[in-house]
Amino acid sequence: MPVDEHKWLIEKTSPYSAHMFSVSKYLVSLKTLYQQVEIAESQLYGRVLILDGKIQSAEYDEYIYHEALVHPAMLINPQPQRILITGGGEGATLREILKHPDVKKVVMVDLDKEVVDLCREYLPTWHRGSFDDSRLNLVYMDARKYLEENDEQFDVIISDIPEPVEKGPALKLFTGQYYALVKNRLAKNGLFALQAGDCGLPFIEVHSAINNTLRQQMPSVRSYRTFVPSFNTDWGYIIASPGIIELPTAAEYDQVIREKSIDLKYFDGETAAGMFSLPRDIRKRLAEETKIIDDNQLLTVY
Amino acid sequence: MPVDEHKWLIEKTSPYSAHMFSVSKYLVSLKTLYQQVEIAESQLYGRVLILDGKIQSAEYDEYIYHEALVHPAMLINPQPQRILITGGGEGATLREILKHPDVKKVVMVDLDKEVVDLCREYLPTWHRGSFDDSRLNLVYMDARKYLEENDEQFDVIISDIPEPVEKGPALKLFTGQYYALVKNRLAKNGLFALQAGDCGLPFIEVHSAINNTLRQQMPSVRSYRTFVPSFNTDWGYIIASPGIIELPTAAEYDQVIREKSIDLKYFDGETAAGMFSLPRDIRKRLAEETKIIDDNQLLTVY
Amino acid sequence: MPVDEHKWLIEKTSPYSAHMFSVSKYLVSLKTLYQQVEIAESQLYGRVLILDGKIQSAEYDEYIYHEALVHPAMLINPQPQRILITGGGEGATLREILKHPDVKKVVMVDLDKEVVDLCREYLPTWHRGSFDDSRLNLVYMDARKYLEENDEQFDVIISDIPEPVEKGPALKLFTGQYYALVKNRLAKNGLFALQAGDCGLPFIEVHSAINNTLRQQMPSVRSYRTFVPSFNTDWGYIIASPGIIELPTAAEYDQVIREKSIDLKYFDGETAAGMFSLPRDIRKRLAEETKIIDDNQLLTVY
Amino acid sequence: MPVDEHKWLIEKTSPYSAHMFSVSKYLVSLKTLYQQVEIAESQLYGRVLILDGKIQSAEYDEYIYHEALVHPAMLINPQPQRILITGGGEGATLREILKHPDVKKVVMVDLDKEVVDLCREYLPTWHRGSFDDSRLNLVYMDARKYLEENDEQFDVIISDIPEPVEKGPALKLFTGQYYALVKNRLAKNGLFALQAGDCGLPFIEVHSAINNTLRQQMPSVRSYRTFVPSFNTDWGYIIASPGIIELPTAAEYDQVIREKSIDLKYFDGETAAGMFSLPRDIRKRLAEETKIIDDNQLLTVY
Repeated sequence: MPVDEHKWLIEKTSPYSAHMFSVSKYLVSLKTLYQQVEIAESQLYGRVLILDGKIQSAEYDEYIYHEALVHPAMLINPQPQRILITGGGEGATLREILKHPDVKKVVMVDLDKEVVDLCREYLPTWHRGSFDDSRLNLVYMDARKYLEENDEQFDVIISDIPEPVEKGPALKLFTGQYYALVKNRLAKNGLFALQAGDCGLPFIEVHSAINNTLRQQMPSVRSYRTFVPSFNTDWGYIIASPGIIELPTAAEYDQVIREKSIDLKYFDGETAAGMFSLPRDIRKRLAEETKIIDDNQLLTVY
Repeated sequence: MPVDEHKWLIEKTSPYSAHMFSVSKYLVSLKTLYQQVEIAESQLYGRVLILDGKIQSAEYDEYIYHEALVHPAMLINPQPQRILITGGGEGATLREILKHPDVKKVVMVDLDKEVVDLCREYLPTWHRGSFDDSRLNLVYMDARKYLEENDEQFDVIISDIPEPVEKGPALKLFTGQYYALVKNRLAKNGLFALQAGDCGLPFIEVHSAINNTLRQQMPSVRSYRTFVPSFNTDWGYIIASPGIIELPTAAEYDQVIREKSIDLKYFDGETAAGMFSLPRDIRKRLAEETKIIDDNQLLTVY
Repeated sequence: MPVDEHKWLIEKTSPYSAHMFSVSKYLVSLKTLYQQVEIAESQLYGRVLILDGKIQSAEYDEYIYHEALVHPAMLINPQPQRILITGGGEGATLREILKHPDVKKVVMVDLDKEVVDLCREYLPTWHRGSFDDSRLNLVYMDARKYLEENDEQFDVIISDIPEPVEKGPALKLFTGQYYALVKNRLAKNGLFALQAGDCGLPFIEVHSAINNTLRQQMPSVRSYRTFVPSFNTDWGYIIASPGIIELPTAAEYDQVIREKSIDLKYFDGETAAGMFSLPRDIRKRLAEETKIIDDNQLLTVY
Repeated sequence: MPVDEHKWLIEKTSPYSAHMFSVSKYLVSLKTLYQQVEIAESQLYGRVLILDGKIQSAEYDEYIYHEALVHPAMLINPQPQRILITGGGEGATLREILKHPDVKKVVMVDLDKEVVDLCREYLPTWHRGSFDDSRLNLVYMDARKYLEENDEQFDVIISDIPEPVEKGPALKLFTGQYYALVKNRLAKNGLFALQAGDCGLPFIEVHSAINNTLRQQMPSVRSYRTFVPSFNTDWGYIIASPGIIELPTAAEYDQVIREKSIDLKYFDGETAAGMFSLPRDIRKRLAEETKIIDDNQLLTVY
């Protein structure tokens, strides 16, 4: 047997299903105060970051995940100057935000300094030096606590937090109470964008509940999704606003991108049209959702 | 260990990756003259059809796969009366075609009578009696041979053939020579729609080569894709025509569906907008493709 | 990927370990009144019987499992005339017993007629016609109930019952209460032989507890074991007796086998020496066991 | 899903079979000049050493593997003073040898200094300080080259070399030519003991060929085996000698162990009886072997 195919990452998605990919080499394997961390080289996806057994992003396609997360909100807001990132330890969400010339200030609040330090060292193609940008204020802290203790306003808040796994550190960053806090920190016409879990039908429950939970808090809530190869599924995102979100046309997106000279590999107007045009069955599923995630009624992924 | 989780289907997608799902019960497991066939009950996807180790469709989401394959071509063509299906043994492609009131005649050419008979017996929710429709002419034969021996013209030709696996029965149904034959059997403004393999970036090679091979034969070639949960990937389709394909707007799709009273679960105008709006990186990948599949230069999936 | 390697049997042995082998074809896959049954062709072990997800025996090496189970007891007893088999649905335990010329009568009590019927049809190389032997009385019934309702005496009782899995049908055939019943049905100097679970150190708990439970009931209890390739582990057996068991020497075994003209492939005197000579660490583990399996204190394998 | 069960080691044993166990943490994962090395913590077996994807030994049961390898030869030889170890990087073979009070000198020849250094650092319970013993001469060199260049004689030579994998570093340490060299370095009545691969029937080919290859070189060749849980199989060993090997009885082993005050956990007289008493089918398989491993006719495991 070839030497390199004995170390496998098996991500179970239910008792009845899993994705598996092989790893040629582990670079990091340790437990921080908050979570189990692995950084590994995989043959198919290049370098990967794994937290608590869940792949967070991969060298091969992190541009898809991060461009999809960041640019809709940053382009819909006409002048995104003050930005908050919660989570985002890899530094790639930050990297994408800093491509926008309007940005004056970015606060990034991540719980786990050890993870951020590891990402800075081992994931240089993710952050590409973004951590050194003078506009950045990097805070190591629970995002919820940060919002409770600071009343600063932001034009765009981006949540790049791992999924809510049982006993995971992010459980209370997916509840109505937390989203109410977020709303209060959004400036007028501010936008909240979040990675919002698996959007494939068999595992859409959490995404759908996040969507419905947000709808209790804000009038404008839009789910969108894109296929991320290393996740083996359509990945879901949501933008929400206390104001009215008017989605740009493809041409409008392309014009702003051109005007602001933003260099992108995945996102553009047609990409956006694809992401925001949800299939009929998914729309129906989201429309019929009744579940609300609450501090006292948490929801976790498998 | 729970009793039901010991039988697993492991679909390797490369030497370095696989999807796995468990099976509660095998209903059929045999070799026909042409291929290995399994029909099984899975906990996650319900009943599944597996040919030569590749999942063909699943009870849970076959409506996605089949509606995506059939309706764009059938709705773009203003009067799809004469239809040819190559492959399509489950009968679900046929089922979707028969929803269109214009249809006068369907010829379905499938190589493997044993598979079709098994599908008729074991996959009733797929075909739903379509095989009994009086407009159907069901022929057991190699599709290429059929086209060589018959010069009938069709308004829509739909290819629902398994992927080209090594030594598989479908290898020569993915070549320029075959597509030239198809083109000659298309009526004026006729449309060719085909399932066209994995459209996820790591495994897009075959889809991309099919796209480019078709572009050598016909002036209008459009790739589109949708996420099929039981395939764990974005699945690719192509419509092609010797004439000019003008894609309907979402509103136009919805209007025709309404006028013709076609009952759908997955497809509608917004769904189409999502499927046909490809991400920038995929468009670039397809545009730069140079590979051409030829009878003497075959291409296979892993 | 080669066509035949997508259907895998994964036997988890703990949350942290599993054996897997591929299946080329399922011949039987159904639920009886009592258990989930699969009969399959595997590339490595030939035909296999699987009950509730646990491999019971394989064409490739069932002779090892069955010869090891049957012959020590049948050869130690000078005149084994009346034999009881509990379980043993494959018919191979019966086959081995019938090789002994002293045998006048065999009662076989198996719970699951469906399994026995399937074995008769699909496992001909296991039973080799033994079910037609006129000395056999085949009873479909719970073995415990049978022993409660019948007070017949036997020279040898052989337990060939699946391991005690959670909610499995055999849970109460591994308890002190059951073994007390067995003891009362043994003739003077009668012997009880049983398949007694995994004897590999990491999973020896059940074997060791059976050994200790039997020691509460009978003065002579001997564990022995052999490696069964399709089980991927050293498999444990026990012989026990209300009398004194004197183990034959290798030469004595060989002499009796010769005298009685018993045709064997695995077992002989040297084999017995290997099976009954346990490693020091295993002996220590068994000697220190305190666990007793009781109707009110059941024990199950993973 | 519990956090700790996503990193799996899958050891394929054929295209149709594999063992898998989960790893909680990788301590080392790198390529030396000669091989891929992993040292990991596993839940089931504790710390494990993996070379080129093959588990070499595990904290949980290395005492079985190493006691079985070392003590038969060291006890059969009445005065084992000069010892050669080839391979044995973990230091546990050395540890067992040093338990024998006769030992005056040990030469250990291991190819891969990096592996030895890693073992010294990460496997302290294996070597337990043995590397610091003043009787040790540790040489980093190919064992074959060493034997070619040195004509020293040894009472016992122990080969603790990884299995011959394709392109692996140990291929030419399993050939007739190499064994001829070994024979010439054995003192009168010297003994050669070697780990000799999987002894389970489905994968016995290499063991059997080693046995036969040795029989061409020396008059006394004895295979023995023991079940090693972390290997999931009966593991094979061979002792060979240019003289006559008379196996001690169990009582004789126990007496020498007592006299020399050797502290053991696995091995003793009864253990030896079990190891050297091979089942009839295995004996037949070995007796009928015709394959000879030659520098020009290598043999590899899957």
